[in-house]
Amino acid sequence: MSERKRVLSGMRPTGQLHFGHLVGALTNWKKLQDTYECFFMVADYHALMSEYEHPERIHQFVYENVIDWMACGIDPARSVIFRQSDVSEHAELFTMLAIMTPLGWLERVPTYKEQLRELEGRDLTTYGFLGYPVLQAADILLYKAHGVPVGEDQLPHLELTREIVRRVHFLLKTEIFPEPKPLLTEAPKLLGTDGRKMSKSYGNTLNLSESAETIRTTVQKMFTDPTRIKMTDPGHPETCNVCNYWRMFAPDQYVRVWDECRTSKRGCVQNKKELAEVLVQMTEPFRAARTRLSEKGTNGYEEVERILQAGAVKARAVARQTILEVKRAFGLAG
Amino acid sequence: MSERKRVLSGMRPTGQLHFGHLVGALTNWKKLQDTYECFFMVADYHALMSEYEHPERIHQFVYENVIDWMACGIDPARSVIFRQSDVSEHAELFTMLAIMTPLGWLERVPTYKEQLRELEGRDLTTYGFLGYPVLQAADILLYKAHGVPVGEDQLPHLELTREIVRRVHFLLKTEIFPEPKPLLTEAPKLLGTDGRKMSKSYGNTLNLSESAETIRTTVQKMFTDPTRIKMTDPGHPETCNVCNYWRMFAPDQYVRVWDECRTSKRGCVQNKKELAEVLVQMTEPFRAARTRLSEKGTNGYEEVERILQAGAVKARAVARQTILEVKRAFGLAG
Repeated sequence: MSERKRVLSGMRPTGQLHFGHLVGALTNWKKLQDTYECFFMVADYHALMSEYEHPERIHQFVYENVIDWMACGIDPARSVIFRQSDVSEHAELFTMLAIMTPLGWLERVPTYKEQLRELEGRDLTTYGFLGYPVLQAADILLYKAHGVPVGEDQLPHLELTREIVRRVHFLLKTEIFPEPKPLLTEAPKLLGTDGRKMSKSYGNTLNLSESAETIRTTVQKMFTDPTRIKMTDPGHPETCNVCNYWRMFAPDQYVRVWDECRTSKRGCVQNKKELAEVLVQMTEPFRAARTRLSEKGTNGYEEVERILQAGAVKARAVARQTILEVKRAFGLAG
Repeated sequence: MSERKRVLSGMRPTGQLHFGHLVGALTNWKKLQDTYECFFMVADYHALMSEYEHPERIHQFVYENVIDWMACGIDPARSVIFRQSDVSEHAELFTMLAIMTPLGWLERVPTYKEQLRELEGRDLTTYGFLGYPVLQAADILLYKAHGVPVGEDQLPHLELTREIVRRVHFLLKTEIFPEPKPLLTEAPKLLGTDGRKMSKSYGNTLNLSESAETIRTTVQKMFTDPTRIKMTDPGHPETCNVCNYWRMFAPDQYVRVWDECRTSKRGCVQNKKELAEVLVQMTEPFRAARTRLSEKGTNGYEEVERILQAGAVKARAVARQTILEVKRAFGLAG
């Protein structure tokens, strides 16, 4: 196998990917490919945990998400792209880790009660959802990942994985897994287009595959600095959502733009108009991927399915070894 | 596939099989083979749920148990004998059912708190143990079993499986599984050789593969009717543990024996001596199996492993179909 250190990350296929996914994960994933051996997983079991009452579209979102991954530069020739449920070893390791994980550890995960509250309209008081971090641990450990890109908020989950590793080693009196380290991604906070916390359920997200038209009309409606009434008032870019989008998506232009706002050289209308064009250009690859596919008379799902199957073969080759090792240590395998 | 209705049952490989297993399951399993297509499972995941702190011997007990199964007439040519962890679909269906099972259902299973108390010296407050009945449901549903042999005490577990079936059908708007029916086994109560509840941890069990010598000395020490002091006192066989063993293991002789006790024609010493010979004869096949193997210079484990592998192939053929069906219904499969 490769001598590069290994990284695992994943996304839940619960909807179209939006700007938040780009800032929060994809941009970082693309970079990780240069340094690490990367396993990128479509976490459909994890998706089912919140969507089991209406699972109809998971299937479609798997494909749509992977099309976006690839449009953004995640390369199946360099990284392993696979679907969690295609590799049965995820469920096998989940089952074995479940058996050793104290119930109290899960009940005390800080995000657990928070998520029960936050994901409104969904009944998450299921046995599976309580085990969400155990399945995450299985995902990571199956590939003996050295690192996991996480945001601050997911640190407790990764810490649980590390605790599970220590417990497995203690019980089996043998060391099987590296303790995965957090690769803290400095994901600056991106608010929704209405200035509230970005959330699909607030309808304040912009999909990566959105039409140019929709991007323009949405940006036009964004709020700017509320204290700037007339154009001659000086702007306060650090409190302006539009200016924050500039910083996020045009890092090499934002200093100039912010300066023009502060000094009233730039009005809010112009500011939004130009931002819209930046965003339209940035999202061009995501629309282009779909145009290319539809010109070929396909939605691309079959092609993605082939990529996922090829990825599953690669993922399984690693996962199978780990499972055999764990099973032998537990006296399960023949 | 066969047109016979299908039955699934299993045993946890946590120790040598003893008389309780014969009365409680094996005798019944043997009969079931005449009527049903039987899947008999060595439930090593379930064993791990209580033994994860000391899993070293599970591996050995798997083989020892199957040797006893076969000695008693469970026939790998007629029934599918397999090890749970060899068929990854058990873990896959467990994971999917876990996702849909309300936490409250599990917390309310009447046997749950009881078992937490009873299995002393073991820490069962794990996430996995709470999901014990979910894994059982997966075992049963994977083979679309029509019937499950159960004792009274396990009825709540089977009822939970039936509730899970109804929930899956409701969520998926399609019927995948038959609701498995309990095949109530009338297992008359067998007490331990000391007259207390039979339990490995009380040391009052007799293994099926016990030596004739040990059986004789153990039976010699059994208590009989405490109200019968002299041989001329009339016996009360219905309250005598030795007489109960007669009824259980020599059903065609016990009426005569009980009568001889009641009428003082038979003393307790003779009664125990003769019972010992009945038990020695009954357990002959279990010792013979081991003698045959050791004469061949083997412990038989390799042969059992081959049987388990062949069984796993047959089990997987059925299980794979079910998993595909469930995955498609949930939008997971490709």
